[in-house]
Amino acid sequence: MEKKQKIVVALGGNALGDNLDEQMKAGKIAAVAIVDLIEAGHELVIVHGNGPQVGMIETAFETASKADEHFPVLPMSVCVALSQGYIGYDLQNVIRAELDARGINKSVSTVITQVEVDEADPAFQDPNKPIGGFMTEAEAKILQNQGVIVKEDSGRGYRRVVASPSPKNIVEKDTILALLNAGQVPIAVGGGGIPVAMQDGQYRGCCAVIDKDRSAALLANQIDADMLIILTAVEKIAINFGTPDQEDLSSMTIAQAHQYIEEEQFAKGSMLPKVEAAISFVQSGTEKKALVTMLSKAKEGIEGKTGTLVL
Amino acid sequence: MEKKQKIVVALGGNALGDNLDEQMKAGKIAAVAIVDLIEAGHELVIVHGNGPQVGMIETAFETASKADEHFPVLPMSVCVALSQGYIGYDLQNVIRAELDARGINKSVSTVITQVEVDEADPAFQDPNKPIGGFMTEAEAKILQNQGVIVKEDSGRGYRRVVASPSPKNIVEKDTILALLNAGQVPIAVGGGGIPVAMQDGQYRGCCAVIDKDRSAALLANQIDADMLIILTAVEKIAINFGTPDQEDLSSMTIAQAHQYIEEEQFAKGSMLPKVEAAISFVQSGTEKKALVTMLSKAKEGIEGKTGTLVL
Repeated sequence: MEKKQKIVVALGGNALGDNLDEQMKAGKIAAVAIVDLIEAGHELVIVHGNGPQVGMIETAFETASKADEHFPVLPMSVCVALSQGYIGYDLQNVIRAELDARGINKSVSTVITQVEVDEADPAFQDPNKPIGGFMTEAEAKILQNQGVIVKEDSGRGYRRVVASPSPKNIVEKDTILALLNAGQVPIAVGGGGIPVAMQDGQYRGCCAVIDKDRSAALLANQIDADMLIILTAVEKIAINFGTPDQEDLSSMTIAQAHQYIEEEQFAKGSMLPKVEAAISFVQSGTEKKALVTMLSKAKEGIEGKTGTLVL
Repeated sequence: MEKKQKIVVALGGNALGDNLDEQMKAGKIAAVAIVDLIEAGHELVIVHGNGPQVGMIETAFETASKADEHFPVLPMSVCVALSQGYIGYDLQNVIRAELDARGINKSVSTVITQVEVDEADPAFQDPNKPIGGFMTEAEAKILQNQGVIVKEDSGRGYRRVVASPSPKNIVEKDTILALLNAGQVPIAVGGGGIPVAMQDGQYRGCCAVIDKDRSAALLANQIDADMLIILTAVEKIAINFGTPDQEDLSSMTIAQAHQYIEEEQFAKGSMLPKVEAAISFVQSGTEKKALVTMLSKAKEGIEGKTGTLVL
């Protein structure tokens, strides 16, 4: 793994914190890990989550529209676009500062990225991705009467839910590739991308959020990357998690991954989509590798010293 | 003017409308005008304003933070970043659809752009750019007591004001240039750019807004463009405006422009900054031209048939 690799790095939500202050502090730690990889000679595209940020944007506009009926309620697609501007600005800034501090002359920038989904995706029939804050049953009823889909979330209250369809095409992939080819560091597909579907010759926003790890895997495939790195809260993927038989995996073949999925080893909405994203990328070509590890171990992971490699 | 030109086009606020619906409709008209220029073989960078949009974003977060004290009030710099994501998403979409409809295979994308200003800029001592909605004297007093600068605006009520410093450097200029060199159409420096100043090796957001025409002129200079086009509400710049002696100008030399400025021919906060932006670009090199006209006349303007050319 010593040669220069083209890598898509997906930063977990925990790499960005839950608010403005946390985002700035967390961003600095992420910048160090990212610049370690750039300094080692790799070409990087950075993908990031947006859960807390998109929730905050949605809440702000919801509150303002309750206070003033003329104030617009932003569609989910537009909320994602705003969150890409917000997080991208912060991230490009801290990464640039870290590059400058190490004397590396590279431009970092954020590409507002749309991701095409299929309107016939079955996910639209069963929206299940919670967004925004919790509400009471009474508040939920009011929204439900307005046609908004709200579900009870694990006994913690009610939350709005939206569909989480499969990503089909990264609309701005040529832009991301042009920046990589110019030796730059693009930040792209933030929050899994702005969900859009083609209608009458134009992309239209969809009421959905796309899983960022799945979009990162698709991007890695479409730009012919060598490697997908999914950074999360744990150093390695484990089986028999939380039992005396827990086993941390250093590597996993596609066949093993499928077997573990059948055994329901990976939590839905947590490790399962990451493993599925890793599988989809590794299967997309020969010599494709995916690594799952934690942010602070990214450099050691790429050197083959830790993390779980999917082959 | 038949040869292929590298052009920075600054879209006026009127090209984007005042709300979501207007933005989508207005964006389509802008897309036709822009694609006319691309079809004629020119290389374009699109700069746009963000007045209504950044005001809307600021209001939403202000309202939400009044309703919940834990909710963050976004700094002006972050509001600009959000507005770039918001407008850029819409613009790249309508321009791409228009390119597709004409069978032109070109990628369009939005670059989140920071613009460096000088913290010692005298504009910071006298904030005078109004932002957000109007308020009563009583509301203004409350904000003033919180340290927010509020001024009476032409008898129409009170508004928050921020500094409008001079742009000194387009931070992401290399990214914009890389996309142009790859034959793509970047949308950049939205709303005049996210205002930042260097502190301890990192760019920090400033409480300011930068005039988009001045930033567009600086960008045109820094990427060695041939031409700056400033699109506004009138077809030509006029002198003796609104009098029986009104004269619409087809061209204007730098010397004439300076003379008209001394005669106070151009309204402050309206045509004056556009003329100043045009002058600053034309003076930045030999054979640099600036054109001021209205959106629907852009194509005729570049063919030398209308608009005011500054030489």
